[in-house]
Amino acid sequence: MSESPVPHEPPIYRRIADGLRARIHAGELRDGDRLPGENALMAEYAIARATARQALAVLINEGLAVPKRGSGVYVRQFKPIRRHGARRLSREQWGQGRAIWDADARGRPFTVDRVEVALERAAEDVARVLDSDQVWVRRRRYLVDARPVQLATSYFPAHLVEGSAITLTDTGPGGVYARLAELGVPPAHFTEEVRARMPNPRESNLLDLPGGTPVIVIARTAYASDGRPVELNEMILDSAAYVLQYDFDA
Amino acid sequence: MSESPVPHEPPIYRRIADGLRARIHAGELRDGDRLPGENALMAEYAIARATARQALAVLINEGLAVPKRGSGVYVRQFKPIRRHGARRLSREQWGQGRAIWDADARGRPFTVDRVEVALERAAEDVARVLDSDQVWVRRRRYLVDARPVQLATSYFPAHLVEGSAITLTDTGPGGVYARLAELGVPPAHFTEEVRARMPNPRESNLLDLPGGTPVIVIARTAYASDGRPVELNEMILDSAAYVLQYDFDA
Repeated sequence: MSESPVPHEPPIYRRIADGLRARIHAGELRDGDRLPGENALMAEYAIARATARQALAVLINEGLAVPKRGSGVYVRQFKPIRRHGARRLSREQWGQGRAIWDADARGRPFTVDRVEVALERAAEDVARVLDSDQVWVRRRRYLVDARPVQLATSYFPAHLVEGSAITLTDTGPGGVYARLAELGVPPAHFTEEVRARMPNPRESNLLDLPGGTPVIVIARTAYASDGRPVELNEMILDSAAYVLQYDFDA
Repeated sequence: MSESPVPHEPPIYRRIADGLRARIHAGELRDGDRLPGENALMAEYAIARATARQALAVLINEGLAVPKRGSGVYVRQFKPIRRHGARRLSREQWGQGRAIWDADARGRPFTVDRVEVALERAAEDVARVLDSDQVWVRRRRYLVDARPVQLATSYFPAHLVEGSAITLTDTGPGGVYARLAELGVPPAHFTEEVRARMPNPRESNLLDLPGGTPVIVIARTAYASDGRPVELNEMILDSAAYVLQYDFDA
């Protein structure tokens, strides 16, 4: 080659976002601090409003900042939770532990503030997956740092769990998976199906979501070693509160 | 127990949605057909408008229907793509192949209509993951059935891939992974980090997203067997077009 290619600069809004991110990571801008506003960025960098907005949008999209209506953009007070599928294969075993998104990998303590347990007729899709028209349903809401982050609804084939503590509010030590093991069907395989969509009003209300925040929906099916489905857990996650991580070999 | 618990009926909006879904699956309502409107459902079931709206929202949320502004809700014309992480562990090996969401599991043919290749200075987060300040960047847009469904941007450490076909528009047979193998660093492990958020204007435009459609963002890092990161691929997915599936053992 006659000459090396010249690297492109990242676009200006990216560089502004990089600078603000660095100040957040350095602790110079802290939880709850107001970020420079659009007008301040426009003046400082001689850029258009749309560009300033784009720079702030990068940080909002990364979950590092939250807009408050009519008041500006603030460093956000909640570090997303890193949720691992397939813990066995966690990257720490072989990788160098670098992640693209900043998130809290240690399990933060969560609380459950609502538990409803009921025997129900299964909706068509649930009946198909679990091969059962009657299901025991466990509905919970999970909070981290007093903030609701997840709604979880677990369905169990009624004939399988009838009479076990899975049908009680308190499932006892080890929870539902310990009870499934006692019933001779410990979960051996999991499938997680993941989608994203806007919340419905009930979800928006229960998760206390600000406008414009989508939810991640995970339908996790647990199978016994013989392939029999033993639980379907539908989880609705505040998308701003979570990073999902899956690790696997090529 | 003195008597068996009585199963609850699912709420009325669920039952209406189940009925409409059954008619879609039976082929009675087809792609592009208009679903009964709110007024029709209110009259037929003697329910409030909010309940009718909830019933339709179930199908919209499942990706089975799309609202068109001022015109009603239509059976959607695009079946979501089922994208598998960890193919090796695919559920077909042990499960019974039932999935909660209807999606096309066979690989539908996709096309790539834009490829941009450039040497760039890495943004701070990319530099950190790849341990390289200079990166070769490959930007593509993927279409399925002529509909844009994914934007993908792959980053490679410049010192690693310089001079290889990874820096060319046409990477040759087997694509970038075959070229990485020739360079002695075939991908051995993958980490996928998954988030969801609203699209920025550029993404919205390139993916031709209707309002209120979030994107799923997957940051996929490929590692060589010695743990060295060799590629970071940031994928922006139309959330209405995809179901992600991950399978793993307990």
